[in-house]
Amino acid sequence: MKKMKRSGRLVDMTHFLLQHPHQLISLSYFADRYTSAKSSISEDLGIVKEMFESQSIGSLLTIPGANGGVKYVPTVAPEEGEEIIYNLCRKLEDPERLLPGGYLYMMDILGYPRLMNEIGRLYAAVFADQKIDAVMTVATKGIPLAYAVGSYLDVPVSIVRRDHRVTEGSMVSINYVSGSSKRIQTMSLARRSLPEGANVLIVDDFMKAGGTALGMMDLLKEFRANVVGIGVLVEAEDVEERLVTDYVSITRLAQVNEKQKEIKVVPGNCLDKIKEVVKA
Amino acid sequence: MKKMKRSGRLVDMTHFLLQHPHQLISLSYFADRYTSAKSSISEDLGIVKEMFESQSIGSLLTIPGANGGVKYVPTVAPEEGEEIIYNLCRKLEDPERLLPGGYLYMMDILGYPRLMNEIGRLYAAVFADQKIDAVMTVATKGIPLAYAVGSYLDVPVSIVRRDHRVTEGSMVSINYVSGSSKRIQTMSLARRSLPEGANVLIVDDFMKAGGTALGMMDLLKEFRANVVGIGVLVEAEDVEERLVTDYVSITRLAQVNEKQKEIKVVPGNCLDKIKEVVKA
Repeated sequence: MKKMKRSGRLVDMTHFLLQHPHQLISLSYFADRYTSAKSSISEDLGIVKEMFESQSIGSLLTIPGANGGVKYVPTVAPEEGEEIIYNLCRKLEDPERLLPGGYLYMMDILGYPRLMNEIGRLYAAVFADQKIDAVMTVATKGIPLAYAVGSYLDVPVSIVRRDHRVTEGSMVSINYVSGSSKRIQTMSLARRSLPEGANVLIVDDFMKAGGTALGMMDLLKEFRANVVGIGVLVEAEDVEERLVTDYVSITRLAQVNEKQKEIKVVPGNCLDKIKEVVKA
Repeated sequence: MKKMKRSGRLVDMTHFLLQHPHQLISLSYFADRYTSAKSSISEDLGIVKEMFESQSIGSLLTIPGANGGVKYVPTVAPEEGEEIIYNLCRKLEDPERLLPGGYLYMMDILGYPRLMNEIGRLYAAVFADQKIDAVMTVATKGIPLAYAVGSYLDVPVSIVRRDHRVTEGSMVSINYVSGSSKRIQTMSLARRSLPEGANVLIVDDFMKAGGTALGMMDLLKEFRANVVGIGVLVEAEDVEERLVTDYVSITRLAQVNEKQKEIKVVPGNCLDKIKEVVKA
């Protein structure tokens, strides 16, 4: 690449770092990329760091030493997180979502990549300090959010299925009891979709009693995997017995009144987690 | 936001534009955001534009006039597109992918968000000049790529399903004949997941005869939608009769020899399309 001015380097560096979250980039890499002295690169990175942090784009961690470099870690400011979560609550309260049986139509939300990316960044921020090797979800509705999270953490996504497909190769299956309907169901994950002993973040769109999440945790035992955390976009409130208690929810369905066509949605515990992370 | 220096503005502006592809951002918006004169903002944008274009991050279109502003349109340089596509071909040729029946395991590729984003950018570049209101795909394997494309085009994703779910509301279903197996199958799309008359880009992971793609086109007729294009990650070669002929493929499966464990994969027609777009 031909030599360029600081202003040009800052634009390209910002783009490059945003494209490579959670990856250590050496100073030499940038020095070569811009045929510039490491001292200039250091100054550039100082400017990028200040902006990333003041604008809550993320942290820029500096690792000193010969093998050192910088790492962009996506974060979110509590106020921004609050705005994203409250906006989502208002969206979810639209009575037009009500479906027979008290179900909520959510595909417009799950189907909007920009919104999924915002929520994905919240999870990436909450779990920024944990070692995560993969995000796992169950088909179909959990997939958009899982990819958004995986994108910000730069880790692969494993998709659990409720059916068998010839294109998955050998699969590991377990039976689980759906917490709310008490029915026995099967879920499977391709053997090669997850290495043994991986640290996994489970993500799903909705959680009632937590039977599906518990099933995924059981399935992960077969892979000797370690569950780092569980994230759900919407949790139901009226649950007699929760099968899973340790999870991070973006929103909580406080009330669904089919007759009066009223939905009440409040922020989940994610907001507290973001505040904790910022404090730490 | 407090007043900041050019170097800071460039970092924040780059981040902001990358987060808002295909959206017109007014000069006043940036002038307010940085409490700076429009003339300074114009100069900033000139620097961003030069870098975005020289580094093939994208084009920065300038729309003059009182309602004008700038729009970031993701693009890709032919050499970069070539590298992404050739790398994918090499990955697909790994004989370890071979499954009984000559199927290929692809979940490691589809499960990697960074790779899906790269391919998503290729499609966003090829279809940059078309009016697209939504990306449509069929569950499950097409979803990752559809979200990546939707993310770069900043449009929603509609997911066609082969089953009925209570959480989708009323659905429109059609029967279609799978081109290769000749079986009659059903596919459905939630009525409210796509507005009438939308311009839709169809995306899928694999295409053999094109029966599924043809089914999606039929389904779209029920929504009076207009098919802007079809994108597939991998197309099969040994197809007697193609049901769909106008599509953009990233790679083409040239040969699968189960006995000798050999797979040959070549670039699809996407590369030519990228070159055409760059010339135009």
